[in-house]
Amino acid sequence: MTRLEKQLGFLLECDRMKSIYRQTYILADESRGASMREFEGDSVKHARRENDAEHSFHLVLFAMILSEYSNEPVDLLKVIKMVTVHDIVEIDAGDTYCYDKEGNKIKADREKLAADRLFGLLPEEQNKEFKELWEEFERADTPESRFANALDRMQPMLLNYTKGGISWKEHGAEYDMVYNRNHVIKDGSDELWEYISQMLDKAEKQGMLTRK
Amino acid sequence: MTRLEKQLGFLLECDRMKSIYRQTYILADESRGASMREFEGDSVKHARRENDAEHSFHLVLFAMILSEYSNEPVDLLKVIKMVTVHDIVEIDAGDTYCYDKEGNKIKADREKLAADRLFGLLPEEQNKEFKELWEEFERADTPESRFANALDRMQPMLLNYTKGGISWKEHGAEYDMVYNRNHVIKDGSDELWEYISQMLDKAEKQGMLTRK
Repeated sequence: MTRLEKQLGFLLECDRMKSIYRQTYILADESRGASMREFEGDSVKHARRENDAEHSFHLVLFAMILSEYSNEPVDLLKVIKMVTVHDIVEIDAGDTYCYDKEGNKIKADREKLAADRLFGLLPEEQNKEFKELWEEFERADTPESRFANALDRMQPMLLNYTKGGISWKEHGAEYDMVYNRNHVIKDGSDELWEYISQMLDKAEKQGMLTRK
Repeated sequence: MTRLEKQLGFLLECDRMKSIYRQTYILADESRGASMREFEGDSVKHARRENDAEHSFHLVLFAMILSEYSNEPVDLLKVIKMVTVHDIVEIDAGDTYCYDKEGNKIKADREKLAADRLFGLLPEEQNKEFKELWEEFERADTPESRFANALDRMQPMLLNYTKGGISWKEHGAEYDMVYNRNHVIKDGSDELWEYISQMLDKAEKQGMLTRK
């Protein structure tokens, strides 16, 4: 296999990101512009889940627009690379809902195997780059990875709140659990956390989140 | 409205990218990982079109992995920003199939209006940055925009070929038309064009493209 064939093989494998569905719902209910024929079934008219490719795309846009709010100066290219790479392991390991305790116990092992196989499709130095970006994101111990993690937490909450708290309600999510889990946003951005924590207060007042 | 509220308003508006469907099909036929309940209808079991968010995400990955093949040195961050921004106008203007002659006549006007409204949601200097990135992509007169355009042409052809030429067949696409339209890939990358033109020859031999 040539170098280019390896690279294209990886890129085609990443097409599967478009079929890994998250708990978050997209906002749009109806077609705009081109055909939505595919989704005319009753079950999806008013709610369709977001997949990993869409989520990652959204995060690239979040990074481009919100980097000024990072607590520390960041290399924007690195932040963008990180949010692009961060969910690729789910091609093999699947999406684990953040409040699924059992699933999260074995998540790390499954994702490590996935990283080895998936990034291993790339030529050696790109394999290394992608693995390092993913590991740095997971460790969240640099300015870029702290900010990337803040965006990764913030984006689904913003969609969910705008959508009336739909996935919080589905899971009966508790205010304290959501607040505590997402408090790490503050490590990446005090300003964004201030906005999000106020939003969570409103969400609770509006009955989107329960309180024990 | 605060600066942050403007920015988040734009980011939420961009959620609509997830509902603009292209002619290209994604590769995956079945669920991997999380639920595909949404797509169990007959019509979509074996083929689901790609949306603009997924396409743009894929292009960011293409840029990260293939920038070494650009004919001229490129600023990778700029290429990535450009492929992220390039289809946002379709939120208002819709996707126009590349071989739709009528639709393409008024495409430029519709997209100009869309750019004014959509990027106009952003604070002034980000509005300017996004508009300039989009315009540069459309003009394709810089190393970054030539390479970004090459990726934008190459990605759907690669998916389509891998999927047995499905959307070429649907539209009865002719070899010469596809070859001529995509020849601009060569302006961005001789090496990628060489690969793609060989792929088109194979596609014709395999009956995916017709010849007058």
